[in-house]
Amino acid sequence: MSQSSFESIVVRFPCQVHWGDCDPAAIIFYPTYFRWFDAATWNMFATVGYDVERIRGEHRAMPLVAANCDFKLPARQGERCEVGSRIARWGGKSFSVSHEVVREDGGVLAVGGETRVWARHASGPGSVMKGEVITEELKALFHAK
Amino acid sequence: MSQSSFESIVVRFPCQVHWGDCDPAAIIFYPTYFRWFDAATWNMFATVGYDVERIRGEHRAMPLVAANCDFKLPARQGERCEVGSRIARWGGKSFSVSHEVVREDGGVLAVGGETRVWARHASGPGSVMKGEVITEELKALFHAK
Amino acid sequence: MSQSSFESIVVRFPCQVHWGDCDPAAIIFYPTYFRWFDAATWNMFATVGYDVERIRGEHRAMPLVAANCDFKLPARQGERCEVGSRIARWGGKSFSVSHEVVREDGGVLAVGGETRVWARHASGPGSVMKGEVITEELKALFHAK
Amino acid sequence: MSQSSFESIVVRFPCQVHWGDCDPAAIIFYPTYFRWFDAATWNMFATVGYDVERIRGEHRAMPLVAANCDFKLPARQGERCEVGSRIARWGGKSFSVSHEVVREDGGVLAVGGETRVWARHASGPGSVMKGEVITEELKALFHAK
Repeated sequence: MSQSSFESIVVRFPCQVHWGDCDPAAIIFYPTYFRWFDAATWNMFATVGYDVERIRGEHRAMPLVAANCDFKLPARQGERCEVGSRIARWGGKSFSVSHEVVREDGGVLAVGGETRVWARHASGPGSVMKGEVITEELKALFHAK
Repeated sequence: MSQSSFESIVVRFPCQVHWGDCDPAAIIFYPTYFRWFDAATWNMFATVGYDVERIRGEHRAMPLVAANCDFKLPARQGERCEVGSRIARWGGKSFSVSHEVVREDGGVLAVGGETRVWARHASGPGSVMKGEVITEELKALFHAK
Repeated sequence: MSQSSFESIVVRFPCQVHWGDCDPAAIIFYPTYFRWFDAATWNMFATVGYDVERIRGEHRAMPLVAANCDFKLPARQGERCEVGSRIARWGGKSFSVSHEVVREDGGVLAVGGETRVWARHASGPGSVMKGEVITEELKALFHAK
Repeated sequence: MSQSSFESIVVRFPCQVHWGDCDPAAIIFYPTYFRWFDAATWNMFATVGYDVERIRGEHRAMPLVAANCDFKLPARQGERCEVGSRIARWGGKSFSVSHEVVREDGGVLAVGGETRVWARHASGPGSVMKGEVITEELKALFHAK
């Protein structure tokens, strides 16, 4: 399973631009997209079986290495959209997720990504995190059939 | 030390209204005040010796029972202000903090309060919290000389 | 239509507790509830015909006078809930909305309210807001049949 | 004044990691960095004379084209830091700001950037924004002496 050929499932996370997500220019305040990206990644992992209870129970964590976003169209209050997320890259102990935010009418609002470490807390929640090798079993969960 | 006569210290927490704290009406988005209240309470406890390290080390927590705020004047981007916080009431295992947000020019922007439990995590961070009796030693730390 | 007898529709706003809505105690950071209350009020007005376009087009605004919340149960990451909102009181130029946050399993997480002015920007977005008399026509939109 | 040789002033924006900025892993929730970046950019412009009143009065805006951040060290509650911001690039109608978040003890927490359009609202706040040519006068304000 080479990286370049990895075909990821795409998981969709619905969201909506609320009044409090917008700034005095009456468009979305951009950190909102990163809040959505984070929630979309958690949602993607829940979809394949790594829900909150399991991640908490196994003391897992997914700390960020990097995040980026290109803003394509201004998003306004009330607009409904979806974050489409897929695995963009598997590294040894890290992975990248790409996110595309699409408005109900098909307009692409934003395109971005996150790189995260697949980690575990050394001794329960709040303790130091250490990266773990990403197994083929984990990768297989995200493989598009 | 009866409740009615408790004279609390007042601790001041400086803050500023940022672009992203404002909504399309170009004034502060009101949950921002509650973010400030929370930070001001942590700051007040740090001031008397209960800093983050100690609270974490002792597995303490201060979960909320209630919060409220009256909004007096619209706050705009760039305005500098201070949250003045004091202990309003000591209960058996809970306490109330009152907060007043004052703009640099003396204008009172908002007045509110929080009621919290003085609690401890049963077995480290993330575990269940249980209320603890508030001691006279704790109260004394907040007593205005 | 006396105040005491006003029977309001109840509008439900679905939401979910995300990772970034939680604090190091692993429960919801409480200003999140107020973000939900605000979005739920906008949603309630949209339901009866005052959607974002109309409110923007008529230069209307709903600035806050007060907000409060009682926190009943700790909410954790992943939990799905609904904010049930209703008109609690009509004043001359202001009104109160009550909100109840209920978890999927029926557990009541939080109960709160907002008091807002029914206002209009004097000269377009960002300008000064002035309260307007609440008409019987407006009230009727929220009247439970 | 060629782009490559532009030597920008560095403007410092003080900030602190609060309880509500942290997630259940007890470290900073990463969108917080982008909230700081935005506030730091506004602060940088205010420093050279483009304060909120002027930007509002001239109907200016600085909408985002892109943003990115590399996360270097985990930030924890209570930590005081500074965002050091400088102009990284001047384009025709856009510009890039680089941000470095440094902890009190000198530890670099995060390094990132924003690309923004130098724009103006066509007809007051909330209206459509159009990019404007960045003048030498504007650039000069940010030139390190």
